Amino acid sequence: MFDTLLIVGGGLIGSSIARAAKANGACKSVLIADGSDVVCAKITELGIADTVRVDATKLAGEADLVILCVPPGQMGPVAAAIIPFMKAGAVLSDVGSVKGGVIKDVTPYMRSDIDFVPGHPIAGTEYSGPEAGFATLFKDRWCILTPDNEDDAAAQKLGEFWEALGSKVAFMTAERHDIVLATTSHVPHLIAYTLVGTAVDMEAVTQNEVVKFSAGGFRDFTRIAASDPVMWRDVFIENKDAVLEVVDRFIEDLSALKRAIRWEDGDPLLEHFTKTRDIRRKIVDAGQDSADADFGRKVD
Amino acid sequence: MFDTLLIVGGGLIGSSIARAAKANGACKSVLIADGSDVVCAKITELGIADTVRVDATKLAGEADLVILCVPPGQMGPVAAAIIPFMKAGAVLSDVGSVKGGVIKDVTPYMRSDIDFVPGHPIAGTEYSGPEAGFATLFKDRWCILTPDNEDDAAAQKLGEFWEALGSKVAFMTAERHDIVLATTSHVPHLIAYTLVGTAVDMEAVTQNEVVKFSAGGFRDFTRIAASDPVMWRDVFIENKDAVLEVVDRFIEDLSALKRAIRWEDGDPLLEHFTKTRDIRRKIVDAGQDSADADFGRKVD
Repeated sequence: MFDTLLIVGGGLIGSSIARAAKANGACKSVLIADGSDVVCAKITELGIADTVRVDATKLAGEADLVILCVPPGQMGPVAAAIIPFMKAGAVLSDVGSVKGGVIKDVTPYMRSDIDFVPGHPIAGTEYSGPEAGFATLFKDRWCILTPDNEDDAAAQKLGEFWEALGSKVAFMTAERHDIVLATTSHVPHLIAYTLVGTAVDMEAVTQNEVVKFSAGGFRDFTRIAASDPVMWRDVFIENKDAVLEVVDRFIEDLSALKRAIRWEDGDPLLEHFTKTRDIRRKIVDAGQDSADADFGRKVD
Repeated sequence: MFDTLLIVGGGLIGSSIARAAKANGACKSVLIADGSDVVCAKITELGIADTVRVDATKLAGEADLVILCVPPGQMGPVAAAIIPFMKAGAVLSDVGSVKGGVIKDVTPYMRSDIDFVPGHPIAGTEYSGPEAGFATLFKDRWCILTPDNEDDAAAQKLGEFWEALGSKVAFMTAERHDIVLATTSHVPHLIAYTLVGTAVDMEAVTQNEVVKFSAGGFRDFTRIAASDPVMWRDVFIENKDAVLEVVDRFIEDLSALKRAIRWEDGDPLLEHFTKTRDIRRKIVDAGQDSADADFGRKVD
């Protein structure tokens, strides 16, 4: 498939790709570049890459596949630095949670002799950093690729790479990706971040009470709202249009339920809550979550 | 402590109290009444009670402690039916997620020779029914009691009962309970219910896409939004004032973050997301959630 893989950015996702590529024999050698000395030292200690360097430009020439695993806002500058050093015929990809914005930022630096296949593995946890990664993070999860043409050899080859890591692969346009992910990921995160802030700022409720009595539902929001702040700042700004559209729909819907509560109109509430329960069943049936009490999220 | 316990309503919470009381020897005998024949048959099959009956009034006279485990909106009618049959000197309690509303509904039927000690164990899962219960549901979770006077013998005795089930006990006023729980539980549920509905109604995104790509954050909302619809309808209506107050604060805060996104103003976003991460750490430190990938929610 790809002989040499270069991962730029050795955090949760990058280090998990390294582990998964090694575990599944998806490439011959794995190189990791990360701008932080501390992260590089950690990766060396973990032994998950064949070569680790702070300067990605020093490794770019060796790689058949380069995957950018930095926050969305850094994709442009990192691409600008690395692309001039890449091998002719190599493939460039990324794992950004936003595709339209990243494509816009990276495209100006592209060369005609390399292929850019944007990607986004729908997987992650609330933890950050190389020690948070694990080899099965992508197993049975979807990876979305948004190439100009999905029949291109580079797009097909990258799809096979992700399948080798255990992922299921879906192709779609960047625009479609961004509205779908605004709905299933970006706005849920924004709402979780908001609610946790609201709770902490309620002067009628002490922070101690919020922490003590969080088991009633709130703690699940705090898990989501503990995700990497820099990455999420970039996601919301890069996918601004889709995020604002979905948020506005959400506020409309919340207002309708608020009105039903204010008027003590139980029937629409019951109907709504029954409908949402059905969606949960579909997600469990589709293997996207577990019905087990531990959510099937055990790390092995 | 209490010789004979009568649980009225054999669902997730009621059946878990029965199991926990037996497992911890917190009373000599456990009676369960449930208006549904099907639920009674299931409880008999599970063998978690000494006596099971459809008609609670037939068992009320035997109990030293009666705990109402029905949805908040049914507490009044159930109390009206049972109280006349209760033993003098017995204690009446409940597990309603709203305290002010339940107290208002139950008080008209109270007798001077029994003690009413309202309660709320902060524990649960998204599953319903007697087969969903388990003996360790309350272990290390808080149980809030809202008696008129926490030094009363009945309140102290009920506190000891919950401690025997593995809970930590907190006393507070019903008013305080209702605003705290609106923040840590009721509004999080309302928001999860809303968002899941919004996602499903987005005509730009198919339901199939929502289900497939839910791993990005959305699936955690669906778990919360799969909780018992009847109970939650009642909670929102019974705790209307506090819920609407917290929702309005939440919408204000969401609007502020929306504005920051619209203006691509990254600093307040980063600051907010960093603050919420800190709350998560406090919840994990307080033992209210686990840092493990499985959230420590394994059922044993």
